[in-house]
Amino acid sequence: MKITIIGSGNIATFFASKWYEAGFSILQVYSKHLVNAKILTQKVNAVAIDNLSKINSEAEIYLIALPDDISQNIIPELNFTNKKIVTCAGSLAISEMNSNQNELASIWPIYSINKNLLPQNNIQVPLAYTCTNNNNCNWVRFLCEKISTQYFPLDDKKKCVMHLAATMANNFTNHIFTLCYELCKKYQLDFKNLLPLIENTIFKLNYQIPSALQTGPAKRKDYATMEKHKKLLDNEQYKKLYELISESIEKSSY
Amino acid sequence: MKITIIGSGNIATFFASKWYEAGFSILQVYSKHLVNAKILTQKVNAVAIDNLSKINSEAEIYLIALPDDISQNIIPELNFTNKKIVTCAGSLAISEMNSNQNELASIWPIYSINKNLLPQNNIQVPLAYTCTNNNNCNWVRFLCEKISTQYFPLDDKKKCVMHLAATMANNFTNHIFTLCYELCKKYQLDFKNLLPLIENTIFKLNYQIPSALQTGPAKRKDYATMEKHKKLLDNEQYKKLYELISESIEKSSY
Repeated sequence: MKITIIGSGNIATFFASKWYEAGFSILQVYSKHLVNAKILTQKVNAVAIDNLSKINSEAEIYLIALPDDISQNIIPELNFTNKKIVTCAGSLAISEMNSNQNELASIWPIYSINKNLLPQNNIQVPLAYTCTNNNNCNWVRFLCEKISTQYFPLDDKKKCVMHLAATMANNFTNHIFTLCYELCKKYQLDFKNLLPLIENTIFKLNYQIPSALQTGPAKRKDYATMEKHKKLLDNEQYKKLYELISESIEKSSY
Repeated sequence: MKITIIGSGNIATFFASKWYEAGFSILQVYSKHLVNAKILTQKVNAVAIDNLSKINSEAEIYLIALPDDISQNIIPELNFTNKKIVTCAGSLAISEMNSNQNELASIWPIYSINKNLLPQNNIQVPLAYTCTNNNNCNWVRFLCEKISTQYFPLDDKKKCVMHLAATMANNFTNHIFTLCYELCKKYQLDFKNLLPLIENTIFKLNYQIPSALQTGPAKRKDYATMEKHKKLLDNEQYKKLYELISESIEKSSY
């Protein structure tokens, strides 16, 4: 399988490296900054280019791993038709892609990829794939199975739901950790003392649904403790967050 | 060291079991339900009692591990004075304890303990201790060092801050996981596909501060994606949460 990679960032590096390791040929890597393309081509034995017009039609698969707004409109700029094109933006539906007569699919890794610290082989990165032509997804599944044992189809609507869930599970919780970190810093407390607690809760999610793990003052309607907590939050934004999340926990039928 | 345990729940079982393993003698275990006391005494070779008046004065240390509101007022009911008493409520300050002339301290495990699945010896449970008499904390440190390598002093104020941080880091994030779980269930998606992403973020908290790990639509002010997300949330409570947390991320100076 011959693949050309359009992009050189975290996701581009992930797919290029994993497919290369799986035995596929990476032909070209495009980046508007040639130096970035070269960093990746050195790893996957490919040719670096910095001009879209230099992308040739020798590959069978073209992976587009660029920022969402650029990905959306790039296909008509490519100098070929009747090729297989894969996008990998989590927040972009296939139906939103400004496409032409090429065959289009999406493979979205549900993971926070860092190109300088790629997930090791023992980490299975879940891959959600979407095909425009449901009768011919075999080539997309083939691309997935070479790099993960956890891959599954998602239509555009469900992919958007999963992206929302991932945003909340990852970005929202990380923001809460940021508030905790700031609070600890202000009172000269070590945030790292919270990590065993956090790690243990995450570990238990493998075996129990989150509602079964809910504890804390809001769940037990311990208003005295909640009042003490609120007095410690002098940032109005954080106090509003505390109140709204506590209210939501109270209202949930745990 | 001879210890009597007042309580038979998660925290009582944790301390009794760990101190017993460390070579201390557990004399009595009190629970208002004798059967619960007996379950614990079988593990730690102690005498089960179900009446506070039966607590004798033979022990050197008395651990109070009861619900906060009961812990607060129980000391005057005990038939001894001049003993060392340890409470372990995270949300209760030593200064709030209705005490008498006994020597009082607090040891709070910053962890979500489950008595049926106690943390194994390779897991260091952080213990925050508070003494009423700062000149004589040695006995409290001694109790801590027998069961954890991570123990540190916290005064009442800082303990309350740490309890707030733990509530947010554990209970608030778990509530967000609950919303994600419900969303996945509604659209027949597997919540477990989010776990590698979540686990990876938590893993990175060992090496980076949370603000450095922030990503997502709110951080990059991607309003198009945020609008798509909000349309999927038909529960008004959840939509308000989405908006407030996103707003808080946007306002943060990441």
